[in-house]
Amino acid sequence: MDFEYSDKVKALSAQLTEFMDAYVYPIEKERDRFHADPANAWKRWHGTEGIKAKAKDAGLWNLFLPHEYGAFSPGLTNLEYAPLAEIMGRVIGASEYFNCAAPDSGNMEVLARYGTPEQQEQWLTPLMAGEIRSSYVMTEPAVASSDATNIETSIVRDGDEYVINGRKWWISSACDPNTKLFIVLGRTPDDSRSKHQQHSMILVPRDTPGIEIVRPLDVLGTYHSPTGHAEVSFTNVRVPAANMVLGEGRGFEIAQGRLGPGRIHHCMRVIGQAQRALEYMARRVNERVAFGRKLADQGSIRQEVALSFCEVEQARLLTLKAADAMDRYGNKAAKDLIAAIKVVAPRMAQTVTDRAIQVHGGIGLSKDFPVASAFINARYVRLTDGPDEVHLAQLGKLKIAQLSALPVR
Amino acid sequence: MDFEYSDKVKALSAQLTEFMDAYVYPIEKERDRFHADPANAWKRWHGTEGIKAKAKDAGLWNLFLPHEYGAFSPGLTNLEYAPLAEIMGRVIGASEYFNCAAPDSGNMEVLARYGTPEQQEQWLTPLMAGEIRSSYVMTEPAVASSDATNIETSIVRDGDEYVINGRKWWISSACDPNTKLFIVLGRTPDDSRSKHQQHSMILVPRDTPGIEIVRPLDVLGTYHSPTGHAEVSFTNVRVPAANMVLGEGRGFEIAQGRLGPGRIHHCMRVIGQAQRALEYMARRVNERVAFGRKLADQGSIRQEVALSFCEVEQARLLTLKAADAMDRYGNKAAKDLIAAIKVVAPRMAQTVTDRAIQVHGGIGLSKDFPVASAFINARYVRLTDGPDEVHLAQLGKLKIAQLSALPVR
Amino acid sequence: MDFEYSDKVKALSAQLTEFMDAYVYPIEKERDRFHADPANAWKRWHGTEGIKAKAKDAGLWNLFLPHEYGAFSPGLTNLEYAPLAEIMGRVIGASEYFNCAAPDSGNMEVLARYGTPEQQEQWLTPLMAGEIRSSYVMTEPAVASSDATNIETSIVRDGDEYVINGRKWWISSACDPNTKLFIVLGRTPDDSRSKHQQHSMILVPRDTPGIEIVRPLDVLGTYHSPTGHAEVSFTNVRVPAANMVLGEGRGFEIAQGRLGPGRIHHCMRVIGQAQRALEYMARRVNERVAFGRKLADQGSIRQEVALSFCEVEQARLLTLKAADAMDRYGNKAAKDLIAAIKVVAPRMAQTVTDRAIQVHGGIGLSKDFPVASAFINARYVRLTDGPDEVHLAQLGKLKIAQLSALPVR
Amino acid sequence: MDFEYSDKVKALSAQLTEFMDAYVYPIEKERDRFHADPANAWKRWHGTEGIKAKAKDAGLWNLFLPHEYGAFSPGLTNLEYAPLAEIMGRVIGASEYFNCAAPDSGNMEVLARYGTPEQQEQWLTPLMAGEIRSSYVMTEPAVASSDATNIETSIVRDGDEYVINGRKWWISSACDPNTKLFIVLGRTPDDSRSKHQQHSMILVPRDTPGIEIVRPLDVLGTYHSPTGHAEVSFTNVRVPAANMVLGEGRGFEIAQGRLGPGRIHHCMRVIGQAQRALEYMARRVNERVAFGRKLADQGSIRQEVALSFCEVEQARLLTLKAADAMDRYGNKAAKDLIAAIKVVAPRMAQTVTDRAIQVHGGIGLSKDFPVASAFINARYVRLTDGPDEVHLAQLGKLKIAQLSALPVR
Repeated sequence: MDFEYSDKVKALSAQLTEFMDAYVYPIEKERDRFHADPANAWKRWHGTEGIKAKAKDAGLWNLFLPHEYGAFSPGLTNLEYAPLAEIMGRVIGASEYFNCAAPDSGNMEVLARYGTPEQQEQWLTPLMAGEIRSSYVMTEPAVASSDATNIETSIVRDGDEYVINGRKWWISSACDPNTKLFIVLGRTPDDSRSKHQQHSMILVPRDTPGIEIVRPLDVLGTYHSPTGHAEVSFTNVRVPAANMVLGEGRGFEIAQGRLGPGRIHHCMRVIGQAQRALEYMARRVNERVAFGRKLADQGSIRQEVALSFCEVEQARLLTLKAADAMDRYGNKAAKDLIAAIKVVAPRMAQTVTDRAIQVHGGIGLSKDFPVASAFINARYVRLTDGPDEVHLAQLGKLKIAQLSALPVR
Repeated sequence: MDFEYSDKVKALSAQLTEFMDAYVYPIEKERDRFHADPANAWKRWHGTEGIKAKAKDAGLWNLFLPHEYGAFSPGLTNLEYAPLAEIMGRVIGASEYFNCAAPDSGNMEVLARYGTPEQQEQWLTPLMAGEIRSSYVMTEPAVASSDATNIETSIVRDGDEYVINGRKWWISSACDPNTKLFIVLGRTPDDSRSKHQQHSMILVPRDTPGIEIVRPLDVLGTYHSPTGHAEVSFTNVRVPAANMVLGEGRGFEIAQGRLGPGRIHHCMRVIGQAQRALEYMARRVNERVAFGRKLADQGSIRQEVALSFCEVEQARLLTLKAADAMDRYGNKAAKDLIAAIKVVAPRMAQTVTDRAIQVHGGIGLSKDFPVASAFINARYVRLTDGPDEVHLAQLGKLKIAQLSALPVR
Repeated sequence: MDFEYSDKVKALSAQLTEFMDAYVYPIEKERDRFHADPANAWKRWHGTEGIKAKAKDAGLWNLFLPHEYGAFSPGLTNLEYAPLAEIMGRVIGASEYFNCAAPDSGNMEVLARYGTPEQQEQWLTPLMAGEIRSSYVMTEPAVASSDATNIETSIVRDGDEYVINGRKWWISSACDPNTKLFIVLGRTPDDSRSKHQQHSMILVPRDTPGIEIVRPLDVLGTYHSPTGHAEVSFTNVRVPAANMVLGEGRGFEIAQGRLGPGRIHHCMRVIGQAQRALEYMARRVNERVAFGRKLADQGSIRQEVALSFCEVEQARLLTLKAADAMDRYGNKAAKDLIAAIKVVAPRMAQTVTDRAIQVHGGIGLSKDFPVASAFINARYVRLTDGPDEVHLAQLGKLKIAQLSALPVR
Repeated sequence: MDFEYSDKVKALSAQLTEFMDAYVYPIEKERDRFHADPANAWKRWHGTEGIKAKAKDAGLWNLFLPHEYGAFSPGLTNLEYAPLAEIMGRVIGASEYFNCAAPDSGNMEVLARYGTPEQQEQWLTPLMAGEIRSSYVMTEPAVASSDATNIETSIVRDGDEYVINGRKWWISSACDPNTKLFIVLGRTPDDSRSKHQQHSMILVPRDTPGIEIVRPLDVLGTYHSPTGHAEVSFTNVRVPAANMVLGEGRGFEIAQGRLGPGRIHHCMRVIGQAQRALEYMARRVNERVAFGRKLADQGSIRQEVALSFCEVEQARLLTLKAADAMDRYGNKAAKDLIAAIKVVAPRMAQTVTDRAIQVHGGIGLSKDFPVASAFINARYVRLTDGPDEVHLAQLGKLKIAQLSALPVR
């Protein structure tokens, strides 16, 4: 047991922080202002590709891919990558500079793990190079999608093709002009298979006829431009049968495999945002004076900072432990910790960023400081990949089974 | 003691709800869509004046003004008006239809109570008629304005005029094209007076040279169009000396008098939004199915609805009690309850709307349902009129003094 | 609507407070010390009967019985009695002085409402006179008794008698030497009746052969002497058939009718304890100095006092509203509010007394101040009459049904 | 970074758990029943010495003493000892079997680090052997002792002796008949020294004339027999000058050095109690049925178990990290984490044990299950070594200083 980052991680963290200091923090507001103009909502900011090129040159590229992916991977474990995800996460949208952004990261994992050589050649290669982006197309408006067996979009074999019909929403990156690939989860009913083998995952080029972006969806008034979260309709969308991933009925198997590392990434990113908010909080209270005393000298303020420190640190440790467990025992054995962090980290981040807003006063709600967007993002992440409630229910069920089987002591 | 609304209140509530059903709910989304287009952010929606005219005809006009204002007032007590504020509050922005919107309501109170006949003729008359709107100009970016003695904007006598210089922000309604009047709090230093007599309140026509809207400020990405919350600069702004309200050094005296009823209104409005979110929550969980059961049949969901009911009801009762206390004993004697509701009501509304978002899933964060904007508004109201922390500190101090003076029993 | 106590209530409150000041507070510690000696755990304190006599003389007797009980009742409504319950509740055990203690109060209601003239003559008369005490015998160790259909104790007709066999626990007052009557809920299975008509309530004299006190049960180390909470076994306990209340299969009907007012009493009493703890908290922080400042001058302490005030006041208002609703519409119509206060009031009291302990430092955990026993009692009341979770589930179900049936607005 | 216990720790943990299974769990209730009899409150249970002898034989002895104490120490780091403290902590009072109980453990550290060879020979040797016990005598009734500069007990030099006068309370172990040594903190005023050099620590044999146990203090009705927490008076208590530790004015220096490891121990022990409560909770909900379903199948119950798991695990990780930091960088450098765990661990334990009580129903409050005493202990530990508030204030101050000094990023 050892709570210190390894020298390798410390060196990478320092390099990444230097990169952020040099190229990311200085242009954060400019990029935000660009996207805040509705005319630019779905355009890519001019500076993005330049920063990506610099990151690639610096070797800060595709860091997320676990070592077991061999040639595709820079060889970091989940535990080694996690602190880097925290650093990137401090600036919303910065992961893209390092080709580490969701949903591309999870999609690359799907292709690296389950894709055929042809599928990898066509899609994984340009994704790894940062030339294109991609969407993961699962959630549906008509059903409670946290129970994935509810998914209704149909994928029907017709000769050498599959035909897709359905309505999806919360499709992140769908609005990004760079997005060229949709990985779609849909229903391929087959009575001979179990309830959890009724769905499949299939690769759909973004420009296939029949795909329509119905509208972008806002998150508390924010569009997360330029990637966005879209409602999308599929009307008789035809793709070659070879686009099926792994085979019919294996959609959930793929979805399960996809989820673990992504949870670590999401959680570490919101932890980065919470940590940043805490730093802004500390600076703010150290500067402002009310009723004759610095805010920093008031007992209630000190409590808020102290509690926030405790909560950030605890969520970070739990997430790192989950990453360590995944590295050691695999995603399945670590599913309890993965469920736990999914609940703990964004709730913590919402609480801490809420306090940070409060000590800033009204301006904490605006774009002048990064605390408001971190608050919005924390609120959002509490709903991505299924609401807290689903994860708590599964975790509780699992723990009751495990703990009630222990000897009475 | 009696927890039933009076027949008068019941009748007015029914009339108001009917009006909302007929004219307000049906156009809510259309108006929101209009203002969501950035091109329309600071334009007035075409239908607003029509609805105002209908409300005026129906006698649902200026309901907020306490009965002591005589001719200006429809004669409702705070306790009678409060449930009406809740009903209007369910739709953000609807108070304007009934000429009951902040900051006009508070400004009308200032003019009715402290204005000269000339000031009333010039400003109160058109405000009461709903012909113009107004801003209350207090908060400043450079100082912690929750401690109003920090306010730095200077108001300097120069012959028959006052000259105003300073920077303000969070000036609600400043962007509304109908806004014609700014009521400005600034510093008029005078060593012969106490620390709380160094500030004054003065009437400033919106179109006076030297006033510049620096920028609108967003609230978690929302502008509350068309009224907005602006940063405003005052550079050598000159107004006649007769525009001073009540006299130099009496700014805080006026500010204190202004606050009480406004707090009731704010609180009842967010309670209305929380109540509405609770109703949406109930409907949503009654419709959606996950893991083979209606959400409404799941224990954790029932808990959330039950707790929300308890919290909404408690906040409502406390606010109504504060209104009753104001009616009976005056704003000053009721200051403990007024501080209490300022903290309790928006916190409760944030909690309840947060739960409502969660049960809606991702779409709860969008504009499809009114829960997201209610959440944003609750978060916002926790910072208006000073952050919770200031009110808690004052309330705690007061209660320690009162309770520790009781006989030991 | 009116948030002021009536003159009648104010006068009774003043009289009751004077009585408490004269006879109850002064001997509180002496009585507690007496019962803290294990040798005296199940003895009655010598002064109790004297205080009861004084209360009876003063007309402060049987105040709880709702006016509909006619001759038995002093004629107070639930709303009128509630503030008196709060005042009595400040001292744990004081209700007995006024013959207003549970479970006698609920038992008297059962007898007054459902008893035959003979049953009333035998048991209600001495109970009303404060000559005897009684227990309500429902909860069982073997089953989750919050679901009363689980109750297993058998009541079997045998000629002119019923024979009772079973094991019960948490039987309050069972250890009190004055207790002469057990009102027992048990199972009288009959296939011709519904699931909720399988249980009956029967009167069992305490000294009937076959009743054995297995042991007293402690509440966080406290026995609530001299009444206690006992585990009790019934082995072939025989009583005359005439002891059945209302008839076989009507046990739940009686239990439902019994519950409403008792909830008000319980809640108001814990509110009284929370209010008292808040007063002790205010005094303590006004006296102690740490790090150069009075605790009362520290921001975090002021917050705790302020929040406690808000929470006590809100719980009180909700409970009073529930009492008012019961008076107006009956227990059944008020069941949502009755469920709500059952959850809200003891949770609030636990939170407030927990804070009160904390500001007292270690000594707050001891018997030197009444805050520790108030904390224990609040924790206890969260489990009496069924745990919070059961009430929240029922309340949530009810509210979802009601609210989802409203027009969409 | 590595979240797995070392093989050494795993082996020791397994050995300790086996020992607990063999000798501690089986007699837990017997010992508790013995001490629950007031006649035995301050007697030692007959089996204690036998278990101690077995633990000594097994090498499970004095495990707590950090490796830097050389010959005195079994050589475990804080990080290695911490999981063992958790295992011992599951049974309140079990640490004594392993000679690892507070306050002896901290007192041994004082003597090992600061004692003269003579002081060590007289007191440390029998303490290490488990032949005697000891008290740490600091807290005073008259002042807020969380601010130790308030301490008033006087220690006055008189020839070759010191004379001690004062009143202390919350003196743990003072009632244990085995306790032979008091380590007393008192005031030795000297204007030539700073405010933090006005106090000294001195060794006082328990049987010195002038020491009187005023009374034992209860913790929510529990005495923690046989060690107890006493109020103690010192009247002209005379000890040789050689009993002074380290020198006059160095009391706080010693107190600081004493605190770090003790915090780890306290926190891990309450984590052990929370973990045990969680296991009891899981078993209980897996057995009980209400309203037709196992508690384990109800969503709200699963949430409570899941949240409890998350909270226990997070508190454990934070405490282990604090231990690791102490081992690496010393107590002073780790003071932020030591303050953090002091707040986090007992609050968490109170929350988790409160939930465990709730799912047990009323019996959860009794001695039938270990959840009630764990709840009481968690509540108690929130006040030992200073209330949460003091630690939060210091932690907040420290973090504001550190974080506001970081570069803005």
